[in-house]
Amino acid sequence: MLTHLTIALDMMGGDYGPRSSIPAAVKAVNQNPHLSLILCGNHQVISEGLEKLDSLHHPRLKIKHCNEVVTNSCEPAQALRRKKDASMRIALDLVKSGEAQACVSSGNTGALFLIATHVLKVLPGVKRPALISAVPTETKDPVYLLDLGANVYCEPQTLFQFGVMGSVVASQRLGIERPRVSLLNIGSEDIKGHEGIKQAAELMRKCNQLNYIGYSEGSDIFTGKAHVIVCDGFVGNVALKTCEGIAKLIMHKFTKALKKHVFYKALAFLLRPVIKKMYKRVNPDQYNGASLVGLRGIVVKSHGNASNKAFLAAIEEAAREVERQIPEKIQAVFEQINAAAVLPSSSKIE
Amino acid sequence: MLTHLTIALDMMGGDYGPRSSIPAAVKAVNQNPHLSLILCGNHQVISEGLEKLDSLHHPRLKIKHCNEVVTNSCEPAQALRRKKDASMRIALDLVKSGEAQACVSSGNTGALFLIATHVLKVLPGVKRPALISAVPTETKDPVYLLDLGANVYCEPQTLFQFGVMGSVVASQRLGIERPRVSLLNIGSEDIKGHEGIKQAAELMRKCNQLNYIGYSEGSDIFTGKAHVIVCDGFVGNVALKTCEGIAKLIMHKFTKALKKHVFYKALAFLLRPVIKKMYKRVNPDQYNGASLVGLRGIVVKSHGNASNKAFLAAIEEAAREVERQIPEKIQAVFEQINAAAVLPSSSKIE
Repeated sequence: MLTHLTIALDMMGGDYGPRSSIPAAVKAVNQNPHLSLILCGNHQVISEGLEKLDSLHHPRLKIKHCNEVVTNSCEPAQALRRKKDASMRIALDLVKSGEAQACVSSGNTGALFLIATHVLKVLPGVKRPALISAVPTETKDPVYLLDLGANVYCEPQTLFQFGVMGSVVASQRLGIERPRVSLLNIGSEDIKGHEGIKQAAELMRKCNQLNYIGYSEGSDIFTGKAHVIVCDGFVGNVALKTCEGIAKLIMHKFTKALKKHVFYKALAFLLRPVIKKMYKRVNPDQYNGASLVGLRGIVVKSHGNASNKAFLAAIEEAAREVERQIPEKIQAVFEQINAAAVLPSSSKIE
Repeated sequence: MLTHLTIALDMMGGDYGPRSSIPAAVKAVNQNPHLSLILCGNHQVISEGLEKLDSLHHPRLKIKHCNEVVTNSCEPAQALRRKKDASMRIALDLVKSGEAQACVSSGNTGALFLIATHVLKVLPGVKRPALISAVPTETKDPVYLLDLGANVYCEPQTLFQFGVMGSVVASQRLGIERPRVSLLNIGSEDIKGHEGIKQAAELMRKCNQLNYIGYSEGSDIFTGKAHVIVCDGFVGNVALKTCEGIAKLIMHKFTKALKKHVFYKALAFLLRPVIKKMYKRVNPDQYNGASLVGLRGIVVKSHGNASNKAFLAAIEEAAREVERQIPEKIQAVFEQINAAAVLPSSSKIE
């Protein structure tokens, strides 16, 4: 356990802004005595919010005033060029300067990706950072899915690197030596999919540092077949949001079916704890805290319409990543792979 | 209602082959007195199967012997070139020659797409055929999603055409004059997504024949926001299979939660009818019968691991499409759009 830890929070992002970030920040410092937070955003709004929770003078909560906000409709390139005093930018600047060890934001994903990459820079040898998140499965372990929307197009080499980074994250979080890594495709046979995916598969197969197990289809995500599933950001984002949509649909149909008859209404009442527990297990809020991996710093992205509970989960996730030194570990594996690449090819492709 | 209708069935495809296609065929002719079926596949296997169901001499069931099968691991281009006596190919040839009005197969999707396109040809002006299917929503109407795996890459013009074809299908099946058409993207704001999608959006916006309502995210699929959602085949296939996966996950978690306590076990028993009904409403089997649209003939693709009930649903779907003359109606709308395109641009882009 780290004895001291500072995280910078972008308080103004997401659909709820300070309404969810302020209660989450207060709860986080109260739960973790080693944690200090720098709250980036409008000073007046934040101090009023803290006041209401009797936490304005909390010794481990510091407000950093920012004049601007990166909204969801803001073009990422514009946000990068023009919004230098936005809460998102300032929070990332604090990680860059070393005042904070990690940053959490629920703001515009595209802008966060672009600004974080510009401010913090990628690790040596990394082509593109990716957004990674845990997704529930039928087994006790979640599966780590990446990329979830940071990169709309991905080269085969980029997908390969996502596999490496995902493997490090899964290994650290699940405590598994060689996590099973898979590529998301539209069929599990080798002949399926497009060229880029076939080339990425070839790169993964040849890499000793990876435990590559072949392709997965959308229906395999939740079976626990793989610990890490790699895809481009467009596909990953659609897959993740489709999950949310269908989970809501099922709950909707179930509740509707139960309400049709007074007998089932009574049953539904008795079943509430089970339904609640089940929904908790598949609800994205519980798995909130996607991370940007591949950067020289820790950035956790909370869901845009996240509750304060979910924003708290994202803060806790950032704290765990600092402790586990994820960026340092990713860098070490990339160094191993690069070292292997300069050996004669016979020993490379074992 | 048509008084006479012949459909050719590829009996050998899918995970279950004749085990699901034979009972489905027998049930289909028994249900619909106007329907005749040509059963393409191994004569011995099919006649033995029919014998067991006391239907070997059914007057509206005709066996067409085929020596070969297109397996799931078969490369589509190989299947097209070499498997000229496969059940899938023969069934499509029967549609081409006019002996059958439609074809149903649960075989290799890639091969079915390639062979069907080669044998039946696309409608005039259509760039690529697409695989379309109904997906359940929170409303009473399903949403039609396309493409579901036939086209891994799609040009903006192709996505636009998918919107047009999807609109015709939804209009016919739902009885709606101007179905709401949307493009699947990774954000609902105009700035999101890649160039191809932005260009497709522009084409849809300008087309008088389309009721284009903007972008949808994965989570919007099931809300009923749109009647038609367009995406490329890779994304569509991943989205559809992800739905299946998460539906199974939720049922798994729910059943597990219920089994933990004897009290809930008893409740689960009482709830069985509701659970069954709900699962039926979100189970892909119920929505089985994806169609290839854009061809000069009707081809319905049944799910690879479809039950005989699902294969039956696919046969019924094929019969409905013959009745509704979907290909003719798609052709008529393409002619309208082409006619509008030769008018001065001011009247085109109203």
